[in-house]
Amino acid sequence: VAVVPSFNAKPRRRSAAVVVRAEGQTINPEIRKAEEKVVDSVVVTELAKPLTAYCRCWRSGTFPLCDGAHVKHNKATGDNVGPLLLKKQ
Amino acid sequence: VAVVPSFNAKPRRRSAAVVVRAEGQTINPEIRKAEEKVVDSVVVTELAKPLTAYCRCWRSGTFPLCDGAHVKHNKATGDNVGPLLLKKQ
Ligand code: FES
Ligand code: FES
Repeated sequence: VAVVPSFNAKPRRRSAAVVVRAEGQTINPEIRKAEEKVVDSVVVTELAKPLTAYCRCWRSGTFPLCDGAHVKHNKATGDNVGPLLLKKQ
Repeated sequence: VAVVPSFNAKPRRRSAAVVVRAEGQTINPEIRKAEEKVVDSVVVTELAKPLTAYCRCWRSGTFPLCDGAHVKHNKATGDNVGPLLLKKQ
């Protein structure tokens, strides 16, 4: 007597889950996208003020300077980024 | 005679497209996440070398310094971020 193997007749459902990893995303959505790599230089002897804040969130309207836009970004995303402060002393 | 309005009998398909905006993502996945805001200070008179690169990609293993990790990030995502260079002259 031949044994008939049993199959589960129900079609398997595909999961609809989408996993988004922050690591796969760009950090800079808008600033100088025509440049292959955005690098800025500061000659520190030429700094005018005792303290100057430089942007590291890529959301500043005055990039490469910080204009405080990191606050809105942190609030919207739960992130914790902030500027680099250059101090003359 | 009453006019019967015609309806399209075909059910409308919902789009399966998912739009992911980089703006909604965190920029910093790992660095000093216990801090509410990661701010670093450089007293520029204390810079040791003629040129020092500071990270703006939040991927450096030597943050706040740049270790070149922006290259891998740019390649993987199509981004164009790079460091801030501090020059003594
Ligand atoms: S605006 Fe970007 S770090 Fe402040
Ligand atoms: S490693 Fe982050 S800018 Fe170079």
